[in-house]
Amino acid sequence: MSDAAPALNGNDILARIADVIDSRKPSAGGDPSASYVAKLFDKGLDHILKKVGEEATEVVIAAKDGDPDKLVYEVADLWFHSMVALAAQGLRPEAVLAELGRREGLSGLEEFARRSR
Amino acid sequence: MSDAAPALNGNDILARIADVIDSRKPSAGGDPSASYVAKLFDKGLDHILKKVGEEATEVVIAAKDGDPDKLVYEVADLWFHSMVALAAQGLRPEAVLAELGRREGLSGLEEFARRSR
Amino acid sequence: MSDAAPALNGNDILARIADVIDSRKPSAGGDPSASYVAKLFDKGLDHILKKVGEEATEVVIAAKDGDPDKLVYEVADLWFHSMVALAAQGLRPEAVLAELGRREGLSGLEEFARRSR
Amino acid sequence: MSDAAPALNGNDILARIADVIDSRKPSAGGDPSASYVAKLFDKGLDHILKKVGEEATEVVIAAKDGDPDKLVYEVADLWFHSMVALAAQGLRPEAVLAELGRREGLSGLEEFARRSR
Repeated sequence: MSDAAPALNGNDILARIADVIDSRKPSAGGDPSASYVAKLFDKGLDHILKKVGEEATEVVIAAKDGDPDKLVYEVADLWFHSMVALAAQGLRPEAVLAELGRREGLSGLEEFARRSR
Repeated sequence: MSDAAPALNGNDILARIADVIDSRKPSAGGDPSASYVAKLFDKGLDHILKKVGEEATEVVIAAKDGDPDKLVYEVADLWFHSMVALAAQGLRPEAVLAELGRREGLSGLEEFARRSR
Repeated sequence: MSDAAPALNGNDILARIADVIDSRKPSAGGDPSASYVAKLFDKGLDHILKKVGEEATEVVIAAKDGDPDKLVYEVADLWFHSMVALAAQGLRPEAVLAELGRREGLSGLEEFARRSR
Repeated sequence: MSDAAPALNGNDILARIADVIDSRKPSAGGDPSASYVAKLFDKGLDHILKKVGEEATEVVIAAKDGDPDKLVYEVADLWFHSMVALAAQGLRPEAVLAELGRREGLSGLEEFARRSR
């Protein structure tokens, strides 16, 4: 990266991944034989959700193993498949960030405290 | 973006939430009686991971309900608790974004295709 | 085993637990303020399913801990909440046992091999 | 069913399935190329636990679909993979039934009420 091209920020990364995901939809001409994401869309929502459950389990396993690299990798997988689930319903990660930002703005996440059990 | 009120980008939001999470750690003086996140840390890693599994299930339920607002809300919950799990091991969401960016750079996510079953 | 006190078999245990679960349904007069199961039914299907996801995560955690007593306890929790999910749809564990028995009869579970990936 | 061949009860079914599972262990000569269960053992505990998480998600999906046959099928899958996780640690479903029976004996499952939140 040059000085003229500033480093990507997180929003850019999530937005660009969401762009790629959207481009793999059947309506955008995604090819299930050539693209993992297009194959996920082709298999349908239940398959995508099954992957979300599976990746959450892998996060748990990686955390129990105390393996930082694996944990980061599995959280990336979980977030990625969450984004495919969002895309399957026409949604974007920006909406998730907005929701997180809204909470953060509400006195430092203490919205969570109020619904804590 | 102006100097006066720069727009938050995703990286800022995730980084700021991670900052708040870190400030709730026992080592940072987090108070379990006053903060939901401090309470999560106080209950320990297994409790945090249980929440990750629970929130993943809520994502699945919201997606099956086809309720976009609920889906965004539950994905925010899932990502948030993932960040608490990362923080419990001294990790930050920036590492997840870097991993996602690395994959995106690899020919438009088609790294996933290569390990597709 | 004498006639006077026959040992319970698994079918009896699962059937008896299913009987208790059924007796806690709103339609059977279950009282959410007095019974955990009645409270689950009162909170509704989504809450019951959230518990299934949560208990599955606890099974994973217990197995990773290599703690046999905890693993048995968490699998019991998982099966129990599965039975509440079945009951919420008017189903009984006997149907699950019949399905398992059908598979076992099919050449020693190798039905599973045929759909293995 | 004749008098000479009494119907299997649930305990028999679970015990017989556990016997088959045990016979697929590497130590018992299970062949990963011929048996799904032997392949699970060969892939290791993490893979087995990932399947538990995945099958729990499929239970949630089937319940949300309100499809009774699918729900029974997926609960059977979940219980089956739970038994493989138990077997991986030298445990048997009879221990789970004993735990469930113990609870049932404690005033009709109201042990659960005491830890209810």
